[in-house]
Amino acid sequence: MFRPFLVTALVVCTGVTFQTFASAQSIHNAKIEAAVRAVLEAQRDAWNRGDIEGYMDGYARSSDTVFVSGDNVMRGWQSVLDRYKKSYNSRDKMGVLTFSDLEINIIGKDAAVVLGRWHLQRANDEPHGRFTLILRQTKQGWKIIHDHTSSA
Amino acid sequence: MFRPFLVTALVVCTGVTFQTFASAQSIHNAKIEAAVRAVLEAQRDAWNRGDIEGYMDGYARSSDTVFVSGDNVMRGWQSVLDRYKKSYNSRDKMGVLTFSDLEINIIGKDAAVVLGRWHLQRANDEPHGRFTLILRQTKQGWKIIHDHTSSA
Repeated sequence: MFRPFLVTALVVCTGVTFQTFASAQSIHNAKIEAAVRAVLEAQRDAWNRGDIEGYMDGYARSSDTVFVSGDNVMRGWQSVLDRYKKSYNSRDKMGVLTFSDLEINIIGKDAAVVLGRWHLQRANDEPHGRFTLILRQTKQGWKIIHDHTSSA
Repeated sequence: MFRPFLVTALVVCTGVTFQTFASAQSIHNAKIEAAVRAVLEAQRDAWNRGDIEGYMDGYARSSDTVFVSGDNVMRGWQSVLDRYKKSYNSRDKMGVLTFSDLEINIIGKDAAVVLGRWHLQRANDEPHGRFTLILRQTKQGWKIIHDHTSSA
């Protein structure tokens, strides 16, 4: 006699639980997306005020952090910082950096992939292209562990 | 009186449990690495017998699958297959493909990143460069969902 009620209650409860789970999941994902987006915004802002160390703060401070472009692979946070400081030793060379068309794909509880465009506005040229970034959640927050950048 | 024994037993048991866990984890990771490596080997073999569909079998058959190179982004398994068939319409154009220096980084229970070199040996040129692949475990096995390729 109580069965239909029980079944209905069970269905409703399962539905509510699932919806709660789905909505908790989407809030969680939105938080990750916001955190990842904040890393890139902080990088862009640091670059555009000539602060290469600030820009590099978006990357994991590890010797395993990988930077790929063209046929080159560079490894390690410190090596890349040194390289950037040498290659971009003036505000003119740094230009104005923008990122656009960011697509964030969460691929695990502590990992995300970002596909985006980069564009450097300088007096005499406008280098631009795409990047794929892999970020992981670390004790220091979300950090890029792998950067594959290509140019037009 | 029994405490030292209990403590020793606890320490030993915890150690054994941890070692068992660590070794189960490393067996699990080795299995993923082997599966990912097999995807790339199958791709290379398919390419080298002129089988573009076989090569494309390494990618997730989804409209979300992403291919990035230079400043270009192409989307969707079918679009890329069509493009490959058009661009590589002879064995001469396909050349002989090799992958090397593969580094597989497992970044979740169903996701892995591969960094590697690609090289195409053809009669008149030898295009080559690097790739970053993101693979996920799907019902059809491990498949590439994101490919960022750059050239020398």
